[in-house]
Amino acid sequence: MTRTKKSIQVPQGFRFAAGEAGLRTHGHGPDVALIYSTAPARVAALFTANRVQAAPVVVSREHLERSGWVAQAIVVNAGNANCATGAAGIRAARQCAAVAGSLLSLRPEQVLLASTGVIGLPLDARRITKLLPALVRRMHPEGYEAASRAILTTDTRPKVAARSLTVAGRRIRILGMAKGAGMVYPRLATMLAFLFTDAAVEPRFLQSAARRVCDLSFNRISVDGDTSTNDTVVLMANGMAGNSAIRGRSPGAEAFLRAFTEVAQELAIALVKDGEGARKLAEIRVEGAASEKQADAIARSIALSSLVKTALAGADPNWGRILSAVGNAGVEFDPRRVNIYLNRTLVCKKGGAADYEEPALERELQGREVLIRVLLGQGRAAARFWTCDFTEEYVRINASYRT
Amino acid sequence: MTRTKKSIQVPQGFRFAAGEAGLRTHGHGPDVALIYSTAPARVAALFTANRVQAAPVVVSREHLERSGWVAQAIVVNAGNANCATGAAGIRAARQCAAVAGSLLSLRPEQVLLASTGVIGLPLDARRITKLLPALVRRMHPEGYEAASRAILTTDTRPKVAARSLTVAGRRIRILGMAKGAGMVYPRLATMLAFLFTDAAVEPRFLQSAARRVCDLSFNRISVDGDTSTNDTVVLMANGMAGNSAIRGRSPGAEAFLRAFTEVAQELAIALVKDGEGARKLAEIRVEGAASEKQADAIARSIALSSLVKTALAGADPNWGRILSAVGNAGVEFDPRRVNIYLNRTLVCKKGGAADYEEPALERELQGREVLIRVLLGQGRAAARFWTCDFTEEYVRINASYRT
Repeated sequence: MTRTKKSIQVPQGFRFAAGEAGLRTHGHGPDVALIYSTAPARVAALFTANRVQAAPVVVSREHLERSGWVAQAIVVNAGNANCATGAAGIRAARQCAAVAGSLLSLRPEQVLLASTGVIGLPLDARRITKLLPALVRRMHPEGYEAASRAILTTDTRPKVAARSLTVAGRRIRILGMAKGAGMVYPRLATMLAFLFTDAAVEPRFLQSAARRVCDLSFNRISVDGDTSTNDTVVLMANGMAGNSAIRGRSPGAEAFLRAFTEVAQELAIALVKDGEGARKLAEIRVEGAASEKQADAIARSIALSSLVKTALAGADPNWGRILSAVGNAGVEFDPRRVNIYLNRTLVCKKGGAADYEEPALERELQGREVLIRVLLGQGRAAARFWTCDFTEEYVRINASYRT
Repeated sequence: MTRTKKSIQVPQGFRFAAGEAGLRTHGHGPDVALIYSTAPARVAALFTANRVQAAPVVVSREHLERSGWVAQAIVVNAGNANCATGAAGIRAARQCAAVAGSLLSLRPEQVLLASTGVIGLPLDARRITKLLPALVRRMHPEGYEAASRAILTTDTRPKVAARSLTVAGRRIRILGMAKGAGMVYPRLATMLAFLFTDAAVEPRFLQSAARRVCDLSFNRISVDGDTSTNDTVVLMANGMAGNSAIRGRSPGAEAFLRAFTEVAQELAIALVKDGEGARKLAEIRVEGAASEKQADAIARSIALSSLVKTALAGADPNWGRILSAVGNAGVEFDPRRVNIYLNRTLVCKKGGAADYEEPALERELQGREVLIRVLLGQGRAAARFWTCDFTEEYVRINASYRT
């Protein structure tokens, strides 16, 4: 948790509840969360780029099309991804939405769905639907913490972030929660993130803001380079703060975008820190690039390199692997201009070894956070990316996750 | 070693020697190999796609341009990649070629170079050049085995493969050796492979054959998805078999291409089997694709998935991860037509769970080799790819390789 509970202001009109449906194949505990907005909320959403799409993704897309991107509830479950489950999986997802809708006096298309867990296992919708009446009774603004725990899979801790700001005299609040752990990769990988605000936001600006914010947060993190079938980011803006709707050029737009980006980056970094087996967070900053696209490609290549990530695990200042990853990014650059810093130590100067104290640097790299800065010496564009170290623990978790 | 020594027929005119220059940062043992052809050989070569190119790659390219793709010797060293070593590294590489050339009465550009090992460490060429006179005295047709050992880094065993065949009444021989272990990935990753034949081969056919053969072998394997700065595949054809030069449409061309492909695939599979920490070989066959390009992209996506590779390590028949990797290949397909087999067991039928005996399959997946067959149900194109499991041992090796 990135903020203490006390400092979090829940956006007006949002209610949360969690309960146990017995869907987890490992252990017990709450595995279903219900999220509800008392007022209809404008929705922006981004779904997995995987061509295999889970039933909740298919059904949520349909619902958003049908409702004109307005929703009031989300039913989330962990333990079962409801993916590769055929027509029965689609029916199960629709049933959850129908029951939640009927209990909350909503049309089914005002209910969105998200699932995470094992692929290919039939989902018994009854387990969820029979829990929903209790969740509806129990839902509460402070329930966000229980909800943030119910959606976890191999995560070791919940991820919640929040900001509040004043836009044209009105206080607005942003609250986000996410789950990640494995398969976290730019194109939204077994990553669920839900962001809520009581701000009124003009629909087109909401969608473009969501895209830009995701590009700077959830699309800039990597745990293992895989992309799941279930990834979903949903933003709900219910307008209960009473501000006049934020648009692209309205006075509060920039501050809203900044706060929204901060919440998303805080969640994204929390996902990386809690990556499967991760002991270390690495921030990769590529600077002096000819374009943001080039900087992004290079940062991404470093963040995805198994060799860089294992060197991080070993606290090995192996800048040769970083330079090699830069070379693998598929973009043009001049290696003889490249400087690389690990934290504040220059380790590679103009493409060759710099003069530094290796034992001291190795001790420093034992720390929990490492900054990898690559200066290309070409232009002024930059990009940031976050990744974690690649440990034996990652392999242990993933070799035995299901069976 | 894939063939017993007795069955290997060394191509005529090739000589090999190995010696110890003390370049290894871990342990001892031979680390330099000299390869020599008594007659000038036509050369086809493929070098790393990494934008950061090691000095031996830069100098070998220059030499081939200058000599018109004819060479007679290769100096290979392990322990030091001679990469990110600036102008001094280029001078060191040139010096090795000059000394070898002078000892063998060759022009420097008739000598090629290859290095593998740590990046960014200055290479003391003297260590190699003072060893060369002894290697020249010692070189011998049967020296290939010692040479195949001297080029290894974290490999646990040498890789040699050979074939012989008759083309238009003349016996011709093909011998190959390779090193790999870490960073093995399609675009030639810290992988060195040398293939020798005494066949006479027309230069343009040699180059196109080398490209096609690499596409079906070294470019179809993956250990960890990284691509090194030093990868090199060199094919030398010295014509000493006395055949009339093989051309694209000459009678022996197809048999030559087949034998050449077999040698390269045998080496490529040996590289995967000996991948860092690998305990298991997986062959991925994608069938029923609309095009070879589509089949290749899907096979590659499965082979590179950390989640598929860790499931292999855990003998977990987790077909959901395979289907998800298919979905991540970036190509269009219909998930509802996909069937997946693990060995002979149908685990995924029309995109959903098939009915199979899980405990029996798990026991079977404990074996050293696994076949993953994906049937797309779209067309008739197919592709094969080889990968290994992803084990805790891989992380152990790479977290401590250098320091």
